[in-house]
Amino acid sequence: MALVQKPTEADGKPKGRGGAYDPPLDFGRIDDLLGYHLRRAQVVMFQDFAETMAETGVSPGQIGVLLLVAANPGVNQTTVGNALGIDRSTLVSMLDRLEERKAIARTPSPRDRRSHALLLTAKGREFLDGLLPLLDQHERRIAARLDAHERATLIDLLRRISTP
Amino acid sequence: MALVQKPTEADGKPKGRGGAYDPPLDFGRIDDLLGYHLRRAQVVMFQDFAETMAETGVSPGQIGVLLLVAANPGVNQTTVGNALGIDRSTLVSMLDRLEERKAIARTPSPRDRRSHALLLTAKGREFLDGLLPLLDQHERRIAARLDAHERATLIDLLRRISTP
Repeated sequence: MALVQKPTEADGKPKGRGGAYDPPLDFGRIDDLLGYHLRRAQVVMFQDFAETMAETGVSPGQIGVLLLVAANPGVNQTTVGNALGIDRSTLVSMLDRLEERKAIARTPSPRDRRSHALLLTAKGREFLDGLLPLLDQHERRIAARLDAHERATLIDLLRRISTP
Repeated sequence: MALVQKPTEADGKPKGRGGAYDPPLDFGRIDDLLGYHLRRAQVVMFQDFAETMAETGVSPGQIGVLLLVAANPGVNQTTVGNALGIDRSTLVSMLDRLEERKAIARTPSPRDRRSHALLLTAKGREFLDGLLPLLDQHERRIAARLDAHERATLIDLLRRISTP
């Protein structure tokens, strides 16, 4: 197999050629890709979420569903999926888990036979109330890296990306 | 099962109670969660990436690996995983696919017996050169929603999140 014989030695150091040091990594174009930086931030955010929430066994999507149903009793399942950007089959399995926990009740939708209206149960309200302090901790830990103005700017710019 | 009997009807409209209209959704706390906005932006970005790249069958992670290996011939596999935030087993299966395409060659690492040094093949270079215009299209399409200053600000703020 012909290999490309063009080591980039612009900094004068051989790269990955068996030296005893770790050569500085050239990120090249990657460092200017918005997609790369979005993904990295999301990975860090998700790792912190997973650590914070480990004992609760809840996913970011599940918390989103609980919060949205809590604020909109009887909301249509399809509306929830669209609002949170969760595809139908993923949402159905999330709702299965939340129903197993007796946190969410699905009733036939009065407006759409193929969908369900969602309600938070009393147990679901209690579950959510227990999750909120952890969610706050998680958000505060990440947001501590930015001041209030920067945090608001970041949310505004992200919103511009996600609502074209 | 006891359901929470507290419909939020602050706007005076019954919600999800069989009306012919879609009641406005109350996002409540969700709309102030950085995690939510990060995830939404990433979903939009990923969908555009997937559509743009559909014919190439390449994932964002694979492009990241190709770009990083192209810029750092002989780079250690572990270094690539750390730099891109890809866990070991995911990286191994990515590298398997890139090796099947004869885009990447793995050689034993001179510095770490448990790892591999990675090189882009001539075929990999050609493959990457074909991907770059599509990647540019994708980035430009998303970045068109922001001006140059906003884009730079967004990247800076995301970097602050991901490099604590």
